[in-house]
Amino acid sequence: MSEAWVLHPDRALPAGELRPLAKEIYAATAGLPLVSMHGHVDVGVFAQDRPFPDPAQLLVVPDHYLVRMVISQGQVSLPQMGVAPVDASAEVEVEQDPRAIWRRFCEHWHLFRGTPTRYWLEHELVEVFGVTRRPSAENADDLFDELSEILRRPEFRPRALFERFGLEIIATTDPATADLAQHASLAAEGWGDRVVPTFRPDPLLHVDRADWRGQLGALSEVSGVDAGDYEGYLAALRQRRRAFVEAGARATDHGHLLTDTTQLPAREAARIFRAALTGEATAAEAQAFSGHMLFEMARMSTEDGLVMQLHPGSLRDHDAGLARAFGHDKGYDIPIGTEYTRSLRPLLEAFGHHPNFRFIVFTLDETTFSRELAPLAGVYPAMKLGAPWWFLDSPDGMRRYREAVTETAGFYNTSGFVDDTRAYPSIPARFDLNRRVDAGYLARLVAEHRLEMDEAIETAVDLAYHIPKAAYPPVRVPAVAG
Amino acid sequence: MSEAWVLHPDRALPAGELRPLAKEIYAATAGLPLVSMHGHVDVGVFAQDRPFPDPAQLLVVPDHYLVRMVISQGQVSLPQMGVAPVDASAEVEVEQDPRAIWRRFCEHWHLFRGTPTRYWLEHELVEVFGVTRRPSAENADDLFDELSEILRRPEFRPRALFERFGLEIIATTDPATADLAQHASLAAEGWGDRVVPTFRPDPLLHVDRADWRGQLGALSEVSGVDAGDYEGYLAALRQRRRAFVEAGARATDHGHLLTDTTQLPAREAARIFRAALTGEATAAEAQAFSGHMLFEMARMSTEDGLVMQLHPGSLRDHDAGLARAFGHDKGYDIPIGTEYTRSLRPLLEAFGHHPNFRFIVFTLDETTFSRELAPLAGVYPAMKLGAPWWFLDSPDGMRRYREAVTETAGFYNTSGFVDDTRAYPSIPARFDLNRRVDAGYLARLVAEHRLEMDEAIETAVDLAYHIPKAAYPPVRVPAVAG
Amino acid sequence: MSEAWVLHPDRALPAGELRPLAKEIYAATAGLPLVSMHGHVDVGVFAQDRPFPDPAQLLVVPDHYLVRMVISQGQVSLPQMGVAPVDASAEVEVEQDPRAIWRRFCEHWHLFRGTPTRYWLEHELVEVFGVTRRPSAENADDLFDELSEILRRPEFRPRALFERFGLEIIATTDPATADLAQHASLAAEGWGDRVVPTFRPDPLLHVDRADWRGQLGALSEVSGVDAGDYEGYLAALRQRRRAFVEAGARATDHGHLLTDTTQLPAREAARIFRAALTGEATAAEAQAFSGHMLFEMARMSTEDGLVMQLHPGSLRDHDAGLARAFGHDKGYDIPIGTEYTRSLRPLLEAFGHHPNFRFIVFTLDETTFSRELAPLAGVYPAMKLGAPWWFLDSPDGMRRYREAVTETAGFYNTSGFVDDTRAYPSIPARFDLNRRVDAGYLARLVAEHRLEMDEAIETAVDLAYHIPKAAYPPVRVPAVAG
Repeated sequence: MSEAWVLHPDRALPAGELRPLAKEIYAATAGLPLVSMHGHVDVGVFAQDRPFPDPAQLLVVPDHYLVRMVISQGQVSLPQMGVAPVDASAEVEVEQDPRAIWRRFCEHWHLFRGTPTRYWLEHELVEVFGVTRRPSAENADDLFDELSEILRRPEFRPRALFERFGLEIIATTDPATADLAQHASLAAEGWGDRVVPTFRPDPLLHVDRADWRGQLGALSEVSGVDAGDYEGYLAALRQRRRAFVEAGARATDHGHLLTDTTQLPAREAARIFRAALTGEATAAEAQAFSGHMLFEMARMSTEDGLVMQLHPGSLRDHDAGLARAFGHDKGYDIPIGTEYTRSLRPLLEAFGHHPNFRFIVFTLDETTFSRELAPLAGVYPAMKLGAPWWFLDSPDGMRRYREAVTETAGFYNTSGFVDDTRAYPSIPARFDLNRRVDAGYLARLVAEHRLEMDEAIETAVDLAYHIPKAAYPPVRVPAVAG
Repeated sequence: MSEAWVLHPDRALPAGELRPLAKEIYAATAGLPLVSMHGHVDVGVFAQDRPFPDPAQLLVVPDHYLVRMVISQGQVSLPQMGVAPVDASAEVEVEQDPRAIWRRFCEHWHLFRGTPTRYWLEHELVEVFGVTRRPSAENADDLFDELSEILRRPEFRPRALFERFGLEIIATTDPATADLAQHASLAAEGWGDRVVPTFRPDPLLHVDRADWRGQLGALSEVSGVDAGDYEGYLAALRQRRRAFVEAGARATDHGHLLTDTTQLPAREAARIFRAALTGEATAAEAQAFSGHMLFEMARMSTEDGLVMQLHPGSLRDHDAGLARAFGHDKGYDIPIGTEYTRSLRPLLEAFGHHPNFRFIVFTLDETTFSRELAPLAGVYPAMKLGAPWWFLDSPDGMRRYREAVTETAGFYNTSGFVDDTRAYPSIPARFDLNRRVDAGYLARLVAEHRLEMDEAIETAVDLAYHIPKAAYPPVRVPAVAG
Repeated sequence: MSEAWVLHPDRALPAGELRPLAKEIYAATAGLPLVSMHGHVDVGVFAQDRPFPDPAQLLVVPDHYLVRMVISQGQVSLPQMGVAPVDASAEVEVEQDPRAIWRRFCEHWHLFRGTPTRYWLEHELVEVFGVTRRPSAENADDLFDELSEILRRPEFRPRALFERFGLEIIATTDPATADLAQHASLAAEGWGDRVVPTFRPDPLLHVDRADWRGQLGALSEVSGVDAGDYEGYLAALRQRRRAFVEAGARATDHGHLLTDTTQLPAREAARIFRAALTGEATAAEAQAFSGHMLFEMARMSTEDGLVMQLHPGSLRDHDAGLARAFGHDKGYDIPIGTEYTRSLRPLLEAFGHHPNFRFIVFTLDETTFSRELAPLAGVYPAMKLGAPWWFLDSPDGMRRYREAVTETAGFYNTSGFVDDTRAYPSIPARFDLNRRVDAGYLARLVAEHRLEMDEAIETAVDLAYHIPKAAYPPVRVPAVAG
């Protein structure tokens, strides 16, 4: 272990003869602004601009992909990592001391070897917070104190970091029922072009979820449109989309388990809607309705111009009992095999050539990159292939993505990197890592004489900046209400 | 961008310490004759030996994988690329000026970065046509003129190129109903051993296709056998296979969506055949019949010795409306996940050890290489694993193929490279690229001391020449009609 | 070909700038003891410690992955390789001369280029047996004589090789109905901690197998518990598990085609059991019962502490007729696509956090590594991801495994290498190859500055030794009978 912990300037670049080529390409993108068009940082972080709490609450507890790894060895439990049960009266001893949580994390630092979590954390600790020692059981308390002091400084508040990170724009993800008040207050403070919302209607499109009727009520209230029947429901969704457009939104986001996009006859959709209201919709009907609603969301995108993002194939809350006890997003979301060719056909046949439609598709199933997604994105004008997502947002995952998709879809049918994270301080690390990996891939093309260096550099800059900007263009607010 | 555009002699070879090893291996295969046993160049190209038309009609319009990329960005439409609607009376303005089409292609040259299309085009332009400038918006008109002049020269006619390309033999792909007249005229001119047909009966085996009954009529006519009932249909197919054998064919080819090969009782097959004649066969029956016919085609191969090629898993005409408007083969054929282990079991149990059966299986689903196809080809004597196909016929695709299959199937249970292309001038580029990629893979085995250099060179030569020749042997014409 | 055949000391390490890093890491593991916790060497090999027969019977005939490759070209048949038909009265000429079998193998040495079989055989021939010439048609007879002489020496008996191989412990795989007498005699000779059994109940859990009722009888007899009804059957299985624990077993092993683990109501399980006794259980019921029994086996593991191993997804005896003629395990076991996320959910929800449960899952379907298995092993404390198995136990297969799983599961949610082989002399080669490949992977992380060298070496030692030891801990024998 080196004495003073410094990150190597060539980290995550390929070794050997590709290294100098990759460095040259990376240098052209390292300083470009960050265009962060899909993520999960809460809007309140920017609206309130409060100092972050202690290191454990900032870096550990809310990051379920970090907590998950610590508990995966069976020696530490969720409550010991500060995760409280849903039922506050449950007789579970929850760790209250952030210092103890931080220590448990530091003690298990070796579990993260070879993972992107480790890569991001190193970047955060060294480049963002200026820490000079690798975490360990021995220095855990010292690091906690050091970081706690840093987090109190004004230059580590969210908006100051926004500037320092080189962010040009960041998109939050917001429920369709959000009142967007914090976005409004940001706009009033002149931050409206920098922090924009994203329309996420999942709970409204899944009629079999326990809270669906509650969501309908919230939708009616916030939209001022009675969503109590199918027609009203569609009108209320349109109203919310318009409100999001007015608040600066550029995109929607959809997290369905399956990718079916089969349109139902309006009468049949209305029938299922009514059945769901009385709790009589079957599981198959609920699934059919959610697929139908993806079709309808695409149609609305052709009308209002919001980019449609699809993030399918994650089986949420694999351990249902644990989710009931501790809530969602605890690391138990597990991918399934996902089908696109046949499932997206109805949507793409209807809207794949529509001049006002933009459709960005993600996957957790790498097998679909070369087999389905690159061929589809390589021909349909409306469709672009999203960045490697979630588990695949890693050095080797990102490399495999370029290797799998480029030969069929090229570079210009991909949509550019998105961070997809709740962990605000990790954003620069994620973008930087992506630029390094893309530089490494391009360097190989240059070394194998499949691309000239001037083209590689232009492509790297396009991937890092111009392509994501073009993929998520500002949406024109219609002059007259729809 | 370099001033004089020259292709690097080491292109597509691995960089670094593998380069000199790869060069040595590649040098042993670079000059070997081309054995092109599966492709889609029209027989008329050779039979008529006419000069190629202008550059756009030669290189752009008929290559749907090039057109698809240009339209994938939504800025250019199919008619603007010279693709005419099926309905000639449709009110669509189709670009008539080949120069304008060529210019649109050149303007979008950057879209092809990192794709095999780009690699092949570079080889064609530089090595075949002697162009010395990368295409661009600026030089598009000059290149058009330059290429137009070249195409008028006699040394750029198809047969002259055949010699120059180093082709030893090329197989065309011909409908089962073809009269093979052009093959006969080639034979009369002494080209019969160089240009051979391939028997492709797909439209006759899918009773749910709109033109199936029309195809039956054509089959009856060309075979002289009434294909109006199931027995006659089988006899007519046998007659055509015999005619293909007599015309020099070495193989059949089958492009089914699914790989099912379940034999039906003859009575059941005959029943479905009758139902299809009156338009009463269900979709499930049509699928069962097509699977059954793969079994029957295998049986006929054991009888007549034609190698059986299977190309499954492409969902043709993904945008059905666009196919109705503009026809097939416009870039909208998208792969699906494909199953082999259970689907091929009936066929392989029946014929997998038959001494007169040769079965070459391709895929668009890379996941099956290590999981299903290499294990199957690694044990059944009749089966060989076909070359990486279509989207996978690319530098990284071909590398992944060797990496995925060699450890389980070895080299000698693969069948050698085939170009599978309509684009005649791209054939040398494709073979050359394959030899480079195989050399790179073998070089790694040598560098990792998993293979000796003498073995690597012998293997490379076998892969490039001896294996494909042996995989598609000449078929003996039976002395007496069957 | 070099004159004196010597294996390169750096074989299977990456070339170029990674080589020195990989050598340094490999050096730290090369001499570590072998912890062989899953394999198929027969217990009698150690209990009887007899000299091995001739080279063909030792190295060729019983290794169906070697025989399969020789017959895959269609020039040699199974009987010519010494494989006899099940029906001894069948009129098949079976090669009786081991020298002729050995010669046929040597003549086809080139078929193994690029395969792990070749890699292991080279190691066996050179490092274990001291042969100095690559096998060929020319030297086949000489090699046969040379090896025959070597095999007669006392230092080549199984127990002497155990010491020389550096084996610390080896687990055999034994039917649930085994009387474990040979393990008892080994224990009496002081070998009880070095050769331990593994509980494999597959034939008892598949009520649709032809010999199921015969197996039940054997179970009743060996356990002394009447397995004639469902309750007795469970009790008898518990008795056998206890007997295995007392004989030193550390694990169970389960080879199911599918991975379903849905628990049935006890009444329903008992009903299917009764139906199976009278041959009336349907295929669907038999499948449901086998899935239910995986759940019950997991429950018993929480009770008795035996590690549960799952090896799913191999379709045994793909050519059923050939299996009837020549028996099982002839190279015709072919993988199928395998699903884990939904299938393992019942088992993991019930026992995935149980402190006394250890669950090691293998696959033949590489697509599940990054998509399903690494995410599951990366969160559930009870689950670890098994070593790359069977066709994937190869240089590139093992590399792809680390690349696919590490970024999501880390190193410490994998379970360490197992050889899974019947071929006793190949065991050192397999462990050594794994250590080389892991060193190569870790070297890349170091070269890309994603890991420090000290961490890489510690990780390599953990993977090679500490992790497998910890994954299969000794099981405490309960003081009082259950």
